[in-house]
Amino acid sequence: MIIREFDLPLELLFKAYVEPDIVEQWMGTKVLKLENKKHGGYQFETIDPKGNKHMFNGVIHEFIPDRKITRTFEMENTPFGVQLEFLEFEQLSDDTSKLNMHVVYRSVELRDQMLKLPFAQGINMAHNRLQEAANKLK
Amino acid sequence: MIIREFDLPLELLFKAYVEPDIVEQWMGTKVLKLENKKHGGYQFETIDPKGNKHMFNGVIHEFIPDRKITRTFEMENTPFGVQLEFLEFEQLSDDTSKLNMHVVYRSVELRDQMLKLPFAQGINMAHNRLQEAANKLK
Repeated sequence: MIIREFDLPLELLFKAYVEPDIVEQWMGTKVLKLENKKHGGYQFETIDPKGNKHMFNGVIHEFIPDRKITRTFEMENTPFGVQLEFLEFEQLSDDTSKLNMHVVYRSVELRDQMLKLPFAQGINMAHNRLQEAANKLK
Repeated sequence: MIIREFDLPLELLFKAYVEPDIVEQWMGTKVLKLENKKHGGYQFETIDPKGNKHMFNGVIHEFIPDRKITRTFEMENTPFGVQLEFLEFEQLSDDTSKLNMHVVYRSVELRDQMLKLPFAQGINMAHNRLQEAANKLK
């Protein structure tokens, strides 16, 4: 479970997950495809400091604007396999909102392997950048 | 985990999962959409003996002919939520093949609820029909 509150109106938080140019800013990836709809797909590409290319992709099972995205996620060529992600977006006040993200792995072992990586740190930093990038749209 | 061996060549077993007219025969559903490719989607409709309509849908994360389908699955308007399914197809001999299906639920509770229904029975009967329907293609 990843739970995070943002100093952002709900609409801006949601925008940060669906608008390619904002996604690129906070995820640090190139968005090759992002079909924001039920049964859409997405494909991201990252180049790490060593110049290695990393690909991410997934499909969107459910897409309800300002409320919910259910999707698969895969970091290609890693041992973690395909994950199922439930993203729920919630308004807290006019200026604050909350993301509840539930990530389901194929096995407990795969999840535990993932948690040995500095995953929490990475997502925290990314969400800090999200807040910053979306703030510019206010 | 659903594991089943079939008296069918691997190619016919796989065909039974991807060709709409065969899927309709053994699943007893109407195939409204079936995009057999990475990032494709599908939508099935069933009408039960009482005349009630049931909808199923999902997205295909990964599609490798005669080997693997990774997809989401949802019975709409039921409490079971979105599932992640890993289907692996394996040749045993020229005339026999095996399906390994790993279904991952959002929670153990949802899985256990599902297992209280006559699920194993239902899938066994469906797979018997699959064998029969695919046999006609030999």
